[in-house]
Amino acid sequence: MSATTLYHASFTVERLYPASPARVFACFAKEEKLRRWLVEGEGWSVDAFRHDFTIGGRDHSAFRWQKGPLITNDGVYHDIVDNERIIISYSMAMEGKIFSASLLTHTFEARDGGTLLTLTEQGTYYSDPNAAKGREEGFLGLLAELGKEAERD
Amino acid sequence: MSATTLYHASFTVERLYPASPARVFACFAKEEKLRRWLVEGEGWSVDAFRHDFTIGGRDHSAFRWQKGPLITNDGVYHDIVDNERIIISYSMAMEGKIFSASLLTHTFEARDGGTLLTLTEQGTYYSDPNAAKGREEGFLGLLAELGKEAERD
Repeated sequence: MSATTLYHASFTVERLYPASPARVFACFAKEEKLRRWLVEGEGWSVDAFRHDFTIGGRDHSAFRWQKGPLITNDGVYHDIVDNERIIISYSMAMEGKIFSASLLTHTFEARDGGTLLTLTEQGTYYSDPNAAKGREEGFLGLLAELGKEAERD
Repeated sequence: MSATTLYHASFTVERLYPASPARVFACFAKEEKLRRWLVEGEGWSVDAFRHDFTIGGRDHSAFRWQKGPLITNDGVYHDIVDNERIIISYSMAMEGKIFSASLLTHTFEARDGGTLLTLTEQGTYYSDPNAAKGREEGFLGLLAELGKEAERD
């Protein structure tokens, strides 16, 4: 009956940053910092970026790679504990057609004078059995960008 | 650093109902039906129940067992396809203190003249390593209530 097969998967990625939990956390809390590491970059254009970093608040971004299809990301914050934890759920769509919904849990722990950031994504991915693997690889690139942002004043 | 340990887990429960997908789906779509099987019941009191069954819409309920603590449930719909699929994420709190955040995917499939409902919960549960098991058992009870509601005119 359904034309869409749904795949459920989860993965965890972590990265140790030589910056305090407060500095790493600020990369999620502050709109201009989040925007830089999450959606900006050479070849990408950002059509919309809204950030309401409160429990129950919503994020919305719309962006595309060169002249590619419009990608949108719509999230809501389920929990925020300063410098310690962020839980957001979000869906992604291409040209208005949803292709995933995920719960993304972030924890920030002081470690070796820096911060261990751990991300666990638990998601439902549409049609593509390899989507979670691709998402995980995408996060590894994003976490490298986040590291540059954490060093920035 | 964090006083709260987070546990990630997922489970799937399914149930075959002798009712059409449209009838089973209506138990989620219609506020008075959802309220009956989800939060009402002898011994429970419902302090609040709001239902906005649209993509991006929010649900909110607040209820307690007898004179117990106030439990709240705050959800947002990530995807809705009539008679086929519902994806909601939600957090639960006791007296304002969040104790879980979950992504809940429902699929409705015509099967043997009835409907196979499959629920997959992927969640982050606070402090209690057995929380997902308890949640799964809770859903089994709720799905029995849903079955009664699906038979109701």
